[in-house]
Amino acid sequence: MSDVAALARVDKAVVSRVVNDDKVLSIRPETRERVHAAIRQLGYRRNMAARSLRTARTGTLGLFIPDFANPVYAEIITGAEAEALARGCVLMVGTSTAGGRAAKDYLEVLGEGRVDGLLLAGGPITWAEQETLSSLGIPWLLVNRRGRTTARHVILDDTRAALIAVEHLLELGHERIAHVGGPAGADTARRRRAGYRKALRQHELIPDPDLDVVADYTPDGGARATTELLAGGARPTAIFVANVASAIGVLTALRTAGLSVPEDVSVIAVHDLPLADHLVPALTTVRMPLRRLGARAAELLLTTQPGDLISEVVREPIELIVRQSTGPPS
Amino acid sequence: MSDVAALARVDKAVVSRVVNDDKVLSIRPETRERVHAAIRQLGYRRNMAARSLRTARTGTLGLFIPDFANPVYAEIITGAEAEALARGCVLMVGTSTAGGRAAKDYLEVLGEGRVDGLLLAGGPITWAEQETLSSLGIPWLLVNRRGRTTARHVILDDTRAALIAVEHLLELGHERIAHVGGPAGADTARRRRAGYRKALRQHELIPDPDLDVVADYTPDGGARATTELLAGGARPTAIFVANVASAIGVLTALRTAGLSVPEDVSVIAVHDLPLADHLVPALTTVRMPLRRLGARAAELLLTTQPGDLISEVVREPIELIVRQSTGPPS
Repeated sequence: MSDVAALARVDKAVVSRVVNDDKVLSIRPETRERVHAAIRQLGYRRNMAARSLRTARTGTLGLFIPDFANPVYAEIITGAEAEALARGCVLMVGTSTAGGRAAKDYLEVLGEGRVDGLLLAGGPITWAEQETLSSLGIPWLLVNRRGRTTARHVILDDTRAALIAVEHLLELGHERIAHVGGPAGADTARRRRAGYRKALRQHELIPDPDLDVVADYTPDGGARATTELLAGGARPTAIFVANVASAIGVLTALRTAGLSVPEDVSVIAVHDLPLADHLVPALTTVRMPLRRLGARAAELLLTTQPGDLISEVVREPIELIVRQSTGPPS
Repeated sequence: MSDVAALARVDKAVVSRVVNDDKVLSIRPETRERVHAAIRQLGYRRNMAARSLRTARTGTLGLFIPDFANPVYAEIITGAEAEALARGCVLMVGTSTAGGRAAKDYLEVLGEGRVDGLLLAGGPITWAEQETLSSLGIPWLLVNRRGRTTARHVILDDTRAALIAVEHLLELGHERIAHVGGPAGADTARRRRAGYRKALRQHELIPDPDLDVVADYTPDGGARATTELLAGGARPTAIFVANVASAIGVLTALRTAGLSVPEDVSVIAVHDLPLADHLVPALTTVRMPLRRLGARAAELLLTTQPGDLISEVVREPIELIVRQSTGPPS
């Protein structure tokens, strides 16, 4: 990367961002073309393979996700794949709950020389898995979640995303704000719930346990949790949903209950996806840098020592996207 | 697998279906448990690796998809992964358009001993890619699409799925039936369009080119195509959408145009996803065996010779799921 940067007369960070197709990067087209020309001239991808990966054997990185149907992971994958390719590695993705087998079994299979490093995104991690990971003899990193013992993770600022979401509802004048949170054991769910509570307390509101329910990160889970919430009789004027997939079901359940969004209940969720524009009503969301998280994870896996403690938060950008599902309380 | 079948006193096909978690399989819980016990006792997974894959070097299969954000692929992946694992192989998934690089480049990287076989799902395939594939020296198979030269593919019966969808609209009394089809070059799009035309002709209706538009398989694509269709002035009473992701956008565009579904326009799409229940209105779909397609693809890759001609259609089950987006014309 240094050679490419020197030849293209740019900073190394610019090379990294060009190869990662970073949309936020603002440089002249000529500069971008110069970087690409230098990459071609130096055969950057191939040459980097052996150098950057200390334990290089296969040139393949593995990324494990709990669920291919959860669109949040598509963004993480895209970022990680671009970074891996830019560093001469192929990224291959698998599911950690494949075919009903324990992730532990699968990890053991992968330890047999198939990949040079492992990224593990999302979902809770068991003691058995963490133990297996440590015994594989290859570098690994948790993505979007923290582990139980060793600090080897890169996460987003979920607490702040939740704060931004709830602040938006508070500014609109809501006080009875419910939370459809993520599954128990999910690290992202814990941090988003902490942000929800913090925002309320900052406005001298006391979090009401009757307004705080749990859903898995699926549409059906969100619908069930919302039905449960409404059955409790304690009707909120707004709901902060921990996950956009759950929010799809939250909207369905509110509609089934005869409630209008945002007239009766406002809804906001974490993670912005193309789908948010097509929901009814279009969903207000908090966009987090999922793609950058994936890229940074691949970079850390390839540039740190297996024994290093890694505890990093990709903080920027977090952005509120106001659509039609939030408004003042009636 | 023969040993497991003998020990569990069942047919080999039953073993295969148990390990693939085939939901259609109806056997007693005791029988299922006997198969699992035999698998454990014989260490089935590990032992199969060397035997079943003729060119076994890495025990890893690659599956390439064009887009992790398209939920249709999640189903194909799930099926292929279960089958691969049952045969002692790990399935790793990559995108064929990774990081903006040509799939051809990526395929070359993969040819360097990283996988033992390749499944390539969806999207058009170029001559260059097909040439690269043939030069890799590993078995490969196209999934859900046919190639340009050699017959090495396994597909679904897309023509019949389209026939079933359009027949449903015809039975409801519709005659002005539009088609929001898939992208030019997509093999699935061609076959679904053929089914649409065939159904109309069988009812002595002439396909109207003004009612036949093209969209990529995304919500935004479906919305654009529908807006274009309505701008033409030739208003249909029903729309057959080639893909459920496009259908999300079709519903949005109809709503924007002030049209009610199904009162003004009925909508039906190919592929049933959990999301269909949560759309407004809930979407009528044709469910195709995507998971079985993935499983069969992995099986064919691992059990045929690299030079074999493979041209297979996974035909059953195809199922009409009537929800709220279709009704009689008003």
